[in-house]
Amino acid sequence: MIQPEVGRLEFASDLRMVRASLVTMTKTASKAIRAATTALLDLDQEAVRMTASLEQELEDDMVEIERRTHHLLARQQPVAGDLRMLVSALKISADCRRMGALANHISTAASRCYPAPAIPDELSEIFRRMDDVASRIADGARITLTTSDALDAARLEIDDDAMDGLLRTLFRALVDNWSHGVEAAVNVALIGRYYERFADHAVGIAQSVIFIETAMRPHVGAPHVG
Amino acid sequence: MIQPEVGRLEFASDLRMVRASLVTMTKTASKAIRAATTALLDLDQEAVRMTASLEQELEDDMVEIERRTHHLLARQQPVAGDLRMLVSALKISADCRRMGALANHISTAASRCYPAPAIPDELSEIFRRMDDVASRIADGARITLTTSDALDAARLEIDDDAMDGLLRTLFRALVDNWSHGVEAAVNVALIGRYYERFADHAVGIAQSVIFIETAMRPHVGAPHVG
Repeated sequence: MIQPEVGRLEFASDLRMVRASLVTMTKTASKAIRAATTALLDLDQEAVRMTASLEQELEDDMVEIERRTHHLLARQQPVAGDLRMLVSALKISADCRRMGALANHISTAASRCYPAPAIPDELSEIFRRMDDVASRIADGARITLTTSDALDAARLEIDDDAMDGLLRTLFRALVDNWSHGVEAAVNVALIGRYYERFADHAVGIAQSVIFIETAMRPHVGAPHVG
Repeated sequence: MIQPEVGRLEFASDLRMVRASLVTMTKTASKAIRAATTALLDLDQEAVRMTASLEQELEDDMVEIERRTHHLLARQQPVAGDLRMLVSALKISADCRRMGALANHISTAASRCYPAPAIPDELSEIFRRMDDVASRIADGARITLTTSDALDAARLEIDDDAMDGLLRTLFRALVDNWSHGVEAAVNVALIGRYYERFADHAVGIAQSVIFIETAMRPHVGAPHVG
């Protein structure tokens, strides 16, 4: 479809704006998981409020990206990489929004137990490492969005394997001579799973970048037309 | 964009095919949660295999819908309701695929404990009701996809509230004089959450139908252009 040159320039600038908003959202998601971990490990009630506010920010940003993306799809009728970018923007913003919700689940669980800790002290170190890995994957997803480097994206799965390993360690601790009662066990299992799901969504963002750049879906392996 | 009449007829038929595939996927997701519940409550290993196979079917169907949808977006450059339908098809198929994964998490948890039950007998009834509600919401989402009735979609949230109530009942059972050990507690908490997430995704499908029909996102309330 032939467009006037000015329209095309404007569209390129609109696409850059959408991408910039996605970069902002992944940054907000990283902040949210760090705030949630502060709420969990430092019993910091201010961090609980901060996590909730970051989740709200992600919700608002998602709505705005959806609105803008639908508008561009309808008006510009993009093809190829531009189409993949816009369709993926919907998925990436939903991933970020979900990451915010998961971070908020963590800080809410911490808040429910306050002023007692939600998890036993001896497991703090594992949760600290889960936070490190989750933040690193989210940061990696953000960098991948900026560089569009499919190789960077693929590397994030190594960190994702590390997250799976940490979750297995948690579950082993739950069955081996657990002495902290049922409520702490349930907290550890659910919170561990929230970190793991957070990381999965961050890896999903990087996989969307691979799809934008190569038209290939990692894992499922089928090429996409468009 | 003016298209030859024949192309438009073909496109209408393509859109109907996409919608029919989504109806099939929601039906498969309903089957998957029922199979998972059979694996969980009847300790049926055949149901474990069935759930895994239904999850795979959902994965394959999602890949096929993504392929077809991207193709149609690129070739037909749809606007308005057709555009919303295609963009939502990606989200709905991802919801169904995730519902399959959650069902599979349930049956895998059951299988890990086999031949012992994964959950205490006295909680079977609550899980049976969670299965009822989850299946009902998934069936409702499928009907909504067929009828395009936004009111039907809105009604599903009442069932979703019932699911939240059942999950709260489970969590109360975990803190009130729990006598079944830590592993069962962790199973109950995680499996309960899988049912609840399954229902959330089914409600999400119905919300996508509202968006397709009205251009409004329920809950977030912002109108969408396109």
